[in-house]
This record gives sequence, structure tokens and C-alpha cells, in this order.
Amino acid sequence: MVVTLTIALDLGGTFVFALSGAMAGIKRRLDLFGVLVLSFAAATSGGIARDMLIGAIPPASISDWRYIAIPVLAGLVAFYWHPIVDRLHAWVLVLDAAGLSLFAVSGTLKALAFHLGPVSAALLGMATGIGGGVVRDLLIAQIPTVLKGDIYAVAALAGAGVVVVGKLLQFPVHFVTAAGLVSCFVLRFAAIQRGWRLPKPVQPRREDPRSGR
Amino acid sequence: MVVTLTIALDLGGTFVFALSGAMAGIKRRLDLFGVLVLSFAAATSGGIARDMLIGAIPPASISDWRYIAIPVLAGLVAFYWHPIVDRLHAWVLVLDAAGLSLFAVSGTLKALAFHLGPVSAALLGMATGIGGGVVRDLLIAQIPTVLKGDIYAVAALAGAGVVVVGKLLQFPVHFVTAAGLVSCFVLRFAAIQRGWRLPKPVQPRREDPRSGR
Amino acid sequence: MVVTLTIALDLGGTFVFALSGAMAGIKRRLDLFGVLVLSFAAATSGGIARDMLIGAIPPASISDWRYIAIPVLAGLVAFYWHPIVDRLHAWVLVLDAAGLSLFAVSGTLKALAFHLGPVSAALLGMATGIGGGVVRDLLIAQIPTVLKGDIYAVAALAGAGVVVVGKLLQFPVHFVTAAGLVSCFVLRFAAIQRGWRLPKPVQPRREDPRSGR
Repeated sequence: MVVTLTIALDLGGTFVFALSGAMAGIKRRLDLFGVLVLSFAAATSGGIARDMLIGAIPPASISDWRYIAIPVLAGLVAFYWHPIVDRLHAWVLVLDAAGLSLFAVSGTLKALAFHLGPVSAALLGMATGIGGGVVRDLLIAQIPTVLKGDIYAVAALAGAGVVVVGKLLQFPVHFVTAAGLVSCFVLRFAAIQRGWRLPKPVQPRREDPRSGR
Repeated sequence: MVVTLTIALDLGGTFVFALSGAMAGIKRRLDLFGVLVLSFAAATSGGIARDMLIGAIPPASISDWRYIAIPVLAGLVAFYWHPIVDRLHAWVLVLDAAGLSLFAVSGTLKALAFHLGPVSAALLGMATGIGGGVVRDLLIAQIPTVLKGDIYAVAALAGAGVVVVGKLLQFPVHFVTAAGLVSCFVLRFAAIQRGWRLPKPVQPRREDPRSGR
Repeated sequence: MVVTLTIALDLGGTFVFALSGAMAGIKRRLDLFGVLVLSFAAATSGGIARDMLIGAIPPASISDWRYIAIPVLAGLVAFYWHPIVDRLHAWVLVLDAAGLSLFAVSGTLKALAFHLGPVSAALLGMATGIGGGVVRDLLIAQIPTVLKGDIYAVAALAGAGVVVVGKLLQFPVHFVTAAGLVSCFVLRFAAIQRGWRLPKPVQPRREDPRSGR
């Protein structure tokens, strides 16, 4: 039952992240292949980076067919029905928050299972959650959105941190998983609803020619 | 005899890909070192990514001196004689198609030898073929050309697919290799000759402000 | 004593590279998290890439808490006091040259310890030194500075080369380390002082429409 739920969430997260990648490719007028690559990259880069860093070779995302099939499916859906996907924007944000939560939590658990320390495991959990979006934005030659003023990575880190602390305190894994998922999702959702943002650096002086670069 | 041919093709592919990387660096007015880096990155990134994903550590491209010497040579040739290389553009396209074929086929065979499944092996073969061009374009802060409307990755995937299917049907490896090379090369060459392109997404509405981004 | 010195230099290099990453993020008006990511990426990407390529998994930079704490500290310092950091620009250049030297030398030594050949080890040493800056620039969607006309990577390669040759000649490791550090630092420092630059490609013809891309 719990396993079924986890798998459903994981594949759901993969689908939603794939959709976000495909939409980014469509906005940049890439061709069908480019859209599929962005779809795959957005859905799997976080997990691939994590697996390579902890030595889980080959990464699940390239050896399990479902992680390949789902991005292809999401990419085709977005390619042929992108006006509809566009209109579901609000829902996509909610699903994206769910995907972020799941990836952050599952990434943390996997890193702990590979004997990483608590701080490293939390960072790898966060990286699993945000990695896909970073690679998606790099592929379209854009500064990654996650670096520019939103409670997104912080929510992933919060969820990962809850998991790490819960495991250190030896709470049961199901409880820890649920608590991590809820922390990340609620924080992300509240940030969207209330427009919470992270602080930006103090405005540089106007006369500094570098500030306009 | 076959081994000699394979090595010759592989090193030839490395040289041609290195040349394409160096030319991209020259167009961006990079310095000599930058040109050599782009040369090396374009020639070896696909193989390095594949080797890291399948656990072939250290990657051949950094432990075999020929994969280091050839990009340096190609980079120097391009740096000092780039007007001539520019004029040979049509030939470079043909050699590039040959390099793509070889890399896609050898990448697929290597992934299969490391016990990857058929779908994963075909994707890794394709990634070996196109990876160099992607990293080359990322280093000059450009959206990778391969994502923007050309039968390029598809040709690599076709060659890789032929290899995978041939191996599943237990055809002799020489035959499978040749068939994969020919499929990729012919498809790529025909696409250049006839201007075949992949479909692009339906034009977004004019009034959508995001479409101009 | 030597170990203490090495650790101090290594952590100092990490701090300075982290500072350069954070400053790049601040100039681009990233938020606090984005600045911390750039700080971490600039300080550790070179070492992470090297460790993944030689199979030292998990990389020290994600399993040793000091490589995580120092970039966070440097990022916070830069975020809240960046006008002061800006004014110390000349000092940062000197410290950066020191960081480059240390990373190039320690990267080379680690690659040799993992049984890489001399040429590969020198290249990995150089990559350790310059990798952080490359990833920093890619994350802000810019062509890496190191590719554009400065004696920077070349200094790293010189230091790495001295280490490799010294080890081949079986000189004592302390001597080799010192010689590598000094070669890289002096070459880099002299290049800054005297404005030495690498050659650029011959100017393309004005009428070539691609030259303006």
C-alpha cells in the first residue's frame, strides 16, 4: 500500500517535471526531439546527478524503462496539446510542488541508504528535487529559475531536513517520509499562495557600470 | 582489419567533432585555450557522459592519450587555418555525419557490453553521438543546435536502434555494426540533402507575450 | 606542519572561490539561495568533477562538512557585505591565484594517487582548478571567463605539469608540491601584473554574417 503510493507519487512527479521541461522547450520553439530531450532532462537530471554522486551506477533513470517512457509521453502530450497544458497552469504548479516534495524526500532517503552523512544527504535530497529544473533552464541558455527569488529550493531543503532529523531520531520511516513530504509541500504551497520570496542583495549603486551586466 | 577500421573511424570522428568545437570557439572569439577546450569538449563529452553513466571509470577519453592529442591537433589546425576549414564546410558536414554514426554505434555497443538494457543502450548510444555538440553549445551559452529542428539526434537513435535490435536477434556483431553505421549515416545524409526537419510546435498565439522570449 | 599548511590553503582556496561565485550571483541579482548555490558551485565543482571522473565516490566536497560550511559562510559574507568585498578586488585576485594553485596541485596529486597517467593527471589537475569558475559562469548563462583570453587555465596547467614531471622524476612530494604551487601562482600573478594574454584567432572577414553572432 505504502509502496504503491510511493511509486504512484514518484511517477507522478516524473510526469509533472517532464511536462514543465516540455513546456519550456515549446516556448523556445524547439523541434519535437528538443522538446522530448527537455522533458527527459527536467524529469530525470536531479535523480541522475544524485545517483552518480553516491555511486548508484547505472542511475535508475536510465535503466528503468518507466523513467524513459513517462517523459516521452509527457513530451508528446505537451507538444500536441500545449495550449491546454498552458491553461492548467495553476494545477501544474500544485503538481510540481508535489513532485518537488517526493523527489526531495526520496532523494534524501536514497542518499542515507548509501551511507552519506546527514548534511550531505539533505543537500542531495534538495539537489534531486531541483536538479531537473536547473538542467532544463541551462539547456535553453537561461539562468536557472530556482536561483532567482522563490521559496522553492528552500522547501525542498526543509523536506529533506525533516527526513534527516527524523531518521537521526530513529522515528519510523513511514512517519518520517510523510512528515518530509508534508513539510516541503506545505511550505512551497504557502509560498506560492502568499508570494513569499527570499531576500535579494542590497541594490548596487547606480553608477556601478557592472550592475547592468 | 575490422579493429583497424573501427579505430580509424573512431579517431576520425573524434577529429571531426573536435574541429566543429574549435570552429564554434573561433566564431565566438575565444582565445587559444578556449578554442582547445571547446575542441576537447565537443570531441569527448558524449563518450565521457556515457562512461560515467555506465561506470566505466576513468573514461577512455581522459585516460587514452589519443583522445587528448587529437582534439589538441584539431584545435590548432582550426585556430591557425580556420578560413580554410570554413571553406571545406560541405566536407565537414559529411565527416560529421560519419562521426555521429560511429559514436552512436560504438556508444551503443559499449553500453550493451556493460549490461544495460536495450532501450537504455540505444539512448546512451544516441547520447554518445550528440553529447559533444550539446556541451560545445552550452559552453558558448547557446541553446544546443541539436534541439532545434534537424534530423540529427534521430539519425543517431536510428543507428543505435539498429544495433540494439540486431544484437537482440543475435546477428553477428560485424554485420550489426555495419548496419547501424549505414542507417545513421544514410538518414543523416539524406536529411541534409533534402532539408528534412522535425516538426515544430504549433505557432503560439501572437498576443502571448511569452512567445517572444 | 605540512598537512596543516595544505589544509589551510585548501580551505582558503575554497573560501576564495566561493566568494567569487557569490559575487557573480550578486551581480546577477539572484536571491540568497541562488547566491549560496553559486558560492558552493564555484568552490566545489572542479573537485566534484575530478572525483567523479577518477571514481572517488562520494566526492569529498559533498561528504566533508567543511566543504559545505565554508561556501555557505562565504556566500553569507558576500551577500551582506558585498560592497566591502568589491573594494577588496585586488586582494581577491591574489587569493584567487593562490586558490587556483592549490586546487591545480592537489587535483593533480589526487589523480596520480588514483593511478591516472601523467597527461590525464595534469589535465584533471587543471580541471580541478578551473572547473568551479566554469560551472559558476554556466549557471549565470555566460560564456566561461576562463575561455576568453587570460593566462589562467595555462597557469593551472603549468602547476599541474610541474607536479607530474616532478613525480615522474621521483622528487620528494613536499618539494614537488611547493614547486607546483609556486609555478602556478607566479605565472598567474605575472600575467595579471603585466596583462599577458593568450592569442586570439585572426579577425574573421567583416562581411561574414556569422562573425557577429
